[in-house]
Amino acid sequence: MSERGRLRDFGVVVGRFDPGPANSISDVAGVTVGHVTISREEGGGQPGARTGVTAIWPHEGVPWRERVYAGTSIVNGYGELIGINQINEWGLLHSPILLTSSLAIGAVYDATARWIAERDPVQGTDDVIMPVVTECDDSYLNHARSFPVTSRHVELALELARAGGVVAEGCVGAATGLQCFDFKGGIGTASRVLPSASGGYTVGALVSTNFGARPDLLLAGVRLGEEISDLMPGTHASGSCIVVVATDAPLLPHQLRRLAARGGMGLVRCGSVGANGSGELVLAFSTANRIPRSAPQGQVHPTALLDGAYWHQPSYFDPLFTATIEAVEEAVGNALFQATTTYGRDGNVLHALPLDRALESLRRHRVLGTEGRAGGDG
Amino acid sequence: MSERGRLRDFGVVVGRFDPGPANSISDVAGVTVGHVTISREEGGGQPGARTGVTAIWPHEGVPWRERVYAGTSIVNGYGELIGINQINEWGLLHSPILLTSSLAIGAVYDATARWIAERDPVQGTDDVIMPVVTECDDSYLNHARSFPVTSRHVELALELARAGGVVAEGCVGAATGLQCFDFKGGIGTASRVLPSASGGYTVGALVSTNFGARPDLLLAGVRLGEEISDLMPGTHASGSCIVVVATDAPLLPHQLRRLAARGGMGLVRCGSVGANGSGELVLAFSTANRIPRSAPQGQVHPTALLDGAYWHQPSYFDPLFTATIEAVEEAVGNALFQATTTYGRDGNVLHALPLDRALESLRRHRVLGTEGRAGGDG
Amino acid sequence: MSERGRLRDFGVVVGRFDPGPANSISDVAGVTVGHVTISREEGGGQPGARTGVTAIWPHEGVPWRERVYAGTSIVNGYGELIGINQINEWGLLHSPILLTSSLAIGAVYDATARWIAERDPVQGTDDVIMPVVTECDDSYLNHARSFPVTSRHVELALELARAGGVVAEGCVGAATGLQCFDFKGGIGTASRVLPSASGGYTVGALVSTNFGARPDLLLAGVRLGEEISDLMPGTHASGSCIVVVATDAPLLPHQLRRLAARGGMGLVRCGSVGANGSGELVLAFSTANRIPRSAPQGQVHPTALLDGAYWHQPSYFDPLFTATIEAVEEAVGNALFQATTTYGRDGNVLHALPLDRALESLRRHRVLGTEGRAGGDG
Amino acid sequence: MSERGRLRDFGVVVGRFDPGPANSISDVAGVTVGHVTISREEGGGQPGARTGVTAIWPHEGVPWRERVYAGTSIVNGYGELIGINQINEWGLLHSPILLTSSLAIGAVYDATARWIAERDPVQGTDDVIMPVVTECDDSYLNHARSFPVTSRHVELALELARAGGVVAEGCVGAATGLQCFDFKGGIGTASRVLPSASGGYTVGALVSTNFGARPDLLLAGVRLGEEISDLMPGTHASGSCIVVVATDAPLLPHQLRRLAARGGMGLVRCGSVGANGSGELVLAFSTANRIPRSAPQGQVHPTALLDGAYWHQPSYFDPLFTATIEAVEEAVGNALFQATTTYGRDGNVLHALPLDRALESLRRHRVLGTEGRAGGDG
Repeated sequence: MSERGRLRDFGVVVGRFDPGPANSISDVAGVTVGHVTISREEGGGQPGARTGVTAIWPHEGVPWRERVYAGTSIVNGYGELIGINQINEWGLLHSPILLTSSLAIGAVYDATARWIAERDPVQGTDDVIMPVVTECDDSYLNHARSFPVTSRHVELALELARAGGVVAEGCVGAATGLQCFDFKGGIGTASRVLPSASGGYTVGALVSTNFGARPDLLLAGVRLGEEISDLMPGTHASGSCIVVVATDAPLLPHQLRRLAARGGMGLVRCGSVGANGSGELVLAFSTANRIPRSAPQGQVHPTALLDGAYWHQPSYFDPLFTATIEAVEEAVGNALFQATTTYGRDGNVLHALPLDRALESLRRHRVLGTEGRAGGDG
Repeated sequence: MSERGRLRDFGVVVGRFDPGPANSISDVAGVTVGHVTISREEGGGQPGARTGVTAIWPHEGVPWRERVYAGTSIVNGYGELIGINQINEWGLLHSPILLTSSLAIGAVYDATARWIAERDPVQGTDDVIMPVVTECDDSYLNHARSFPVTSRHVELALELARAGGVVAEGCVGAATGLQCFDFKGGIGTASRVLPSASGGYTVGALVSTNFGARPDLLLAGVRLGEEISDLMPGTHASGSCIVVVATDAPLLPHQLRRLAARGGMGLVRCGSVGANGSGELVLAFSTANRIPRSAPQGQVHPTALLDGAYWHQPSYFDPLFTATIEAVEEAVGNALFQATTTYGRDGNVLHALPLDRALESLRRHRVLGTEGRAGGDG
Repeated sequence: MSERGRLRDFGVVVGRFDPGPANSISDVAGVTVGHVTISREEGGGQPGARTGVTAIWPHEGVPWRERVYAGTSIVNGYGELIGINQINEWGLLHSPILLTSSLAIGAVYDATARWIAERDPVQGTDDVIMPVVTECDDSYLNHARSFPVTSRHVELALELARAGGVVAEGCVGAATGLQCFDFKGGIGTASRVLPSASGGYTVGALVSTNFGARPDLLLAGVRLGEEISDLMPGTHASGSCIVVVATDAPLLPHQLRRLAARGGMGLVRCGSVGANGSGELVLAFSTANRIPRSAPQGQVHPTALLDGAYWHQPSYFDPLFTATIEAVEEAVGNALFQATTTYGRDGNVLHALPLDRALESLRRHRVLGTEGRAGGDG
Repeated sequence: MSERGRLRDFGVVVGRFDPGPANSISDVAGVTVGHVTISREEGGGQPGARTGVTAIWPHEGVPWRERVYAGTSIVNGYGELIGINQINEWGLLHSPILLTSSLAIGAVYDATARWIAERDPVQGTDDVIMPVVTECDDSYLNHARSFPVTSRHVELALELARAGGVVAEGCVGAATGLQCFDFKGGIGTASRVLPSASGGYTVGALVSTNFGARPDLLLAGVRLGEEISDLMPGTHASGSCIVVVATDAPLLPHQLRRLAARGGMGLVRCGSVGANGSGELVLAFSTANRIPRSAPQGQVHPTALLDGAYWHQPSYFDPLFTATIEAVEEAVGNALFQATTTYGRDGNVLHALPLDRALESLRRHRVLGTEGRAGGDG
C-alpha cells in the first residue's frame, strides 16, 4: 500500500477556495486540539480497546469565563451531543468540546466536570459548568463492553489540547476505532481562507468520521465506493460523524446555526445520506466575539456584523457557506486518506482506503492529473 | 351591560411591572398600528362581513431598507404567518405586519406586495419584498365565503398605521369577527417598562384573540370561565391568536425567539391549552438595531448586548421574559374587556364578556378590591 | 408547621379532570419509578451530599427491545437530556429515564450503560444502547464538588424502579437538593383520567422541580409567591425542571411532541417564565404501541390513531392537552406540598412552603373552602 | 444547440436505484401535476410575463376530506410555503400544492381558496381550508411588477392537474421564468422504485429550480459549472428551489420530515450551498394512509410501519433516503436539460445549459460513455 498522507499531498483538491497555512481547524487562531489514543490488547494478545478521546479548546482562554457564539445542526440525529440544549438556547459555547466512544460519554463528562472543578472553585458552587461531550460508536472494533476510557485519558486529552500544535489525523483520539464508508475512518481536518473581497475570514473543520455505506462514497465527486467494492468489513456498522466548524467570522448565534448546517452539507457531498442509524451532528462556533460571564448587563459590544441581505448582490454568507462545505468535504477525505487498516475485537477489521486505487480512479475521471483540474498527482 | 374599558380602567392589575405611558405596543418608540374594520350587512339586512385588516409598522422608516431583528414562536401551529421562514432564517423583519381573516391572507399579501411596488421601484426588479401576513379564522361570524377583504382595505390599514396614534382595541381590524374563550374577542394591547436596574427597556404586546374554550378562561389567575358558563355561542369555534411583541431591548435574533416564546406563555396564563385547531403564533422584534439592506459587508455595528449568563445572579432576561408574559396576559384581558357583543352570519352571535360579573368574580376572589392586590375602584 | 401531604389531602383541586386511582404517573399501566436519596453529612457533621437518582421505566419489559413512541419539548433549554437527539429523530424511547444532579449525569450515564451491558450481551456488540439521562442543578444545597453519586446509587434506582409501587414525592431521589420558587422543591406526580367520551385515556406526570423565582409562584392561580415573601434562601438559585409525561393514548411521535409542549404549559401555569438559567425540559411517551427492535421491516401494526382534525368539533387532543397541563400543575403543587425544609452545604437552607399559610391564602382567595370550588377542608 | 431531453435520453444515469415507469413523481399512484405557463409580450413586443402556476394533487380524492401524512424540511429558509405551520403541527397535508412566482402567492392563495369555496360548501362555514402555496422568485426574467398571475391561471392549473398525464418539464408552469446555476432552470421530475427486498416502495420528486451559482454546479458529481463558465446572465439572481417528494411508503409524519430532509440533500448533491438569499424548501408526503377529516375519534388504522431501528442491520429507511436524494438530483438534472434559453424583461436572458458541452464534459470525466458507468450513447 502506498504511504498515507493528506488529499493535497497527492494533488487532490476539493473546492475552489484556498486552505489556510496548516489546512487545519487550528488555522482559526486560538483553536487547539488534543488526542489520546487508546489501543491495547487483551490477555492472550487479543485486540481490545480501540478507542480514545479528542479534546478541542475554542480559544486559549477559559471558555466558561469567556464564552463564544455557537450554533448546532443535525443531519441525522441518532447520536448525542451533551450540551446541545444550552448551546441552542443561549447561543454560547462555554466549555471545551470532547469527542469519544458512545458508551464512554458518561465517563468523559464525569472526568471533564471534575477536571474543571479541580481548577476552578466556582464549579459546583457559584456555577455549574456542563461540558460539551459527543460521541461516535466504535464498538465494531473497540471492546466497548470493557469501558476502557478512564478519567486519566480525559485529563490528558484536555491538557494535550491546551498545548496546541499540529492536529493529528487518521486513527487517533476519538476516531481510533471508527469507520468511514466501510473503510477505516478517522480524524480529519481542513480549512479555508476567504479572499479579502469576501471578508478574508478563515473557516476550519474537524471531523471524526464514522458514517457512510460503501456504495455511497464520493471523493471529489467521483463515485469511488462503486469502484472499490472489495475490502469490506464483515458487517456494515451504521455510524455517525461529529463535525466541528470554527471560524473567525463575526457570526451571531443564529448565523452559526446556518454555518453548522453547511457543515452537514459537506458530509452530503462525501456521500452521506444521513443514514437511519447515524448521528451526524455539527457544532459551529466563532472566535470573533467573546462574551464574558460576568460583564455588566447591557454593556456595548462593538460587533462586526455581516449584512445578510444583499439581494442580487454578493453576500459574505455564500463564500462562508461554500468554504464550510469544502473544508468539511476535504476533512473527510483527509480522514480516509490518513487512516490505516485496523484490527479490532473478535477478528473484526476495517481496511484503509487503498490510496493507489483511489488516486487511479480520480485520474481516470480526470479529477486528478495533468488533464484534470488538480495540478498534479505528486 | 356596563360600559367597556381596559382592565386597568376597572382597577384590574396583571403582574408586577408597570405599564408604559399608553399601556400599548405603541409605547415602543416607532411602532404604529392601523385598523380597517369591515362590518356590513348583506341584502335584506342580513349580517355579512365581520372582518378586517390590522397593519403594524415596526418603525417609522422603510422596513425593507432598514430591517430589525426578529424571532418567532409557535404555541400551536394550526395557523399561518407568511414570512415566517425568512424571519427564522435571517433573523430579520423587513416588512409591515398584516393581520386578517384566514381566507383573506392571499388578498392581503397581494395588495401589500402591490402597495410596496407602487412606492418602491426595487420591488420586483432588484428585490422582492415578501410581506408578513398572518391570520385568524373569523368565519363563525364573518361571511368568509364572500371574500370581503379588498386591496383598498389593505392600503387603508397600511396608511392608517403610518399615521400612528392610539391603538384601538376590541372589535376592530383583523379581530372584528374573532372570539376569545367563547366570548367575543378582539384586539388588545399592553406594555411594560422595566425598572432602570433591569435595563429600563420597554416591551409592548398586541394580540388578536381567537383562542380558548370557555371552561379554560383564566383572568388574573381566576377560573372565570367556570364561573360564567352561560352566554355561549351555538358552536365552539376552535381558534387562534396572533401575538406581536415589540421591544427596544437590544436583543439578537436567537434571543427574540426566546422572547416570542414568552409571548406564548402569556396566552397560557390566560388559559390557552394550545388547542388542536388553534394557530397561536408569536412574532417578536426589537427596534434597538436597524440592519440596513445595502450597507457594506462586515461593517461594525456597536450593539448593546445583554449578557445572558449570570448564574446565581440577576440577568436582564428574566425581567424581560416576565414583562412579556404580563403584557400579553393583560393584552388578552383588554381584548376581552373591550370587545362587544357581535352578531354575524346565519344568526351566529358572540357575546361580550359581562364586565360586571367578571369584576364581581375578581372581587370575590380578592384579586380586585380593597382587600385584594389591586388598588381598585371596586 | 402542619403535616405535609398532597394537594388533594388538603382539598386543593387543580383543573377539572379527575385523577387516576393513585393520582400518579404510575396510573399509566407499566410505568414505574424508583428513587435513591443521597443525604449525608461530612466530617464534623457538616451537611454534605443532598442529591440522588430517580429512575423511570416506561413499561415492565425491556425498553431497548420494545421501544415506545416519544417526543420532547423545551420551555427553556439551559439544561441537558442525554438521548434527546435520538428521541427527536426516531420518535422512540428505548431506555429507562434517569434523573440526577447536573454534575452527576456523566456518572449516571456510565453506570446505566454498564448496568445494561451486564444484563444484555448486545450492549456494545450488536447494539449500543445510550440511556436517557437528565439533570437539575442541586448545588445550592448539595456539595456537588464532592461528586457523591456512584454507580451503586444508579443500580439501586434502576432496580427499585423495577419493583414499582407508590411513587414517593418531596425530597427524594434526584430532587433531594432541589428548589422550587425559592422554597424547597422536590419530586411531584399526578395523573388524569379522561371521560370515556374523550377516549378514556390516562395521562400521568412526574416533575423534579428546581425552577421559579418566588414572586412568580402561582398556586391554583393564586399569586402565592407575592403573599409569602419571607422564608427566602440566601441566594436565588436559577433552576430547572424535568417533566416526564406518560400516557396510554395511542399518540404518534409528532403528537407526543405536542403533548410534551403541554407539559411545559403546566409549568407556566405554576409561574414559570422559562427563566434564563433554567432547563425546563419535557419528555412525553405513550405506552400504547411497542415498536420491537427486531421485527420484520414493513410489518403491519394495527394502531389506534387519534384523528387530529375535527374542525368546529370536539377533538380528542384538547382533553389530552388540558389533562397534561393539569397533571403537571398538580405535580408541581404536590412537590411543593411534600418537600420539607432542608439544610445543605455552607449553611444554605431551603425552607418548605408553609402549608398553613398557603392554605389560608387559598381560602382567602376562595380557591379553597366552602365558598370555593374545592370541596375542601375549610 | 442539440435537441433537449431528459438525462436518461442521453444516457446519463444518476445513482443506483431504478426509476419508475415514467421516471416521474406521477409514478406514485394518484399524484398528478398541472402547469399553466404565462409567457407574453408587452406593448411594442417587449418581453413581459415569464411566470406561471404549477398545481400538484396528492391523490385523486379530495385532500381536505382525506388528508395524507406529510413533513417539511428547509435547506435555507429565504422563501415561503404557506401552510408549513399546519403541516408541521398536525403532520397532515390537506390541500393541493400550488407553486408560483414570489409576488403571486397572494393571488394564487386567494384563487385557490375561492376555487375550493365554489366546490365545497364547508369552506368558510364549517371549515377553513388554507391551501399550500409556495414560491420562487422569477423577477429576473418576469415582469413581476405587472402582477400577471390571475385567478383564471390558478383554476386552470388545478383542473389540468386533475387531468393527470405526463408531467411536463423545463420552462413550464411556476418555472417558466426561473434560473438554475445561472442557466435557465425549470420544472424537473424523476422517480425511484426500490427493490422488493427493500420494500418495493416508489419515491417521486418534482423540483422547480431557481437555485445555485454557476461555479457550484455539479452534474453527476462533475464540476460542470467550472467547465462552462460562459453563457452567464447579466446578474446572478440568488434563487430558490421548491422540492416536492411523494412516496407510497407508509411513513409517519416524523419520518416524512426525515424524507424531506433527504430531498434537500439532493439539492446539495447538485451543488447547492443553501445560498443566503435562497428559499430551498422541501415538502414530502406519503399516499399510503389517508386520514379522514370526519372519522370517529380513536378508530383503528391498520398501518404498515417501517421499523426504524435495526442497528447493524439493513433498515428500510436507508434505501428510501438514498432513493429520495437520487430522485431529486435527477429531477434537477432533468430541469436543466429540458429548459430552453429564455429572454425576459429589460433584455435579461437566461441561457439553456448547452447539452453538447455538458455531455462532452461527462464523457471526458467518464461519467458517461462506453468507458463510464452509464450504458450510454457514447
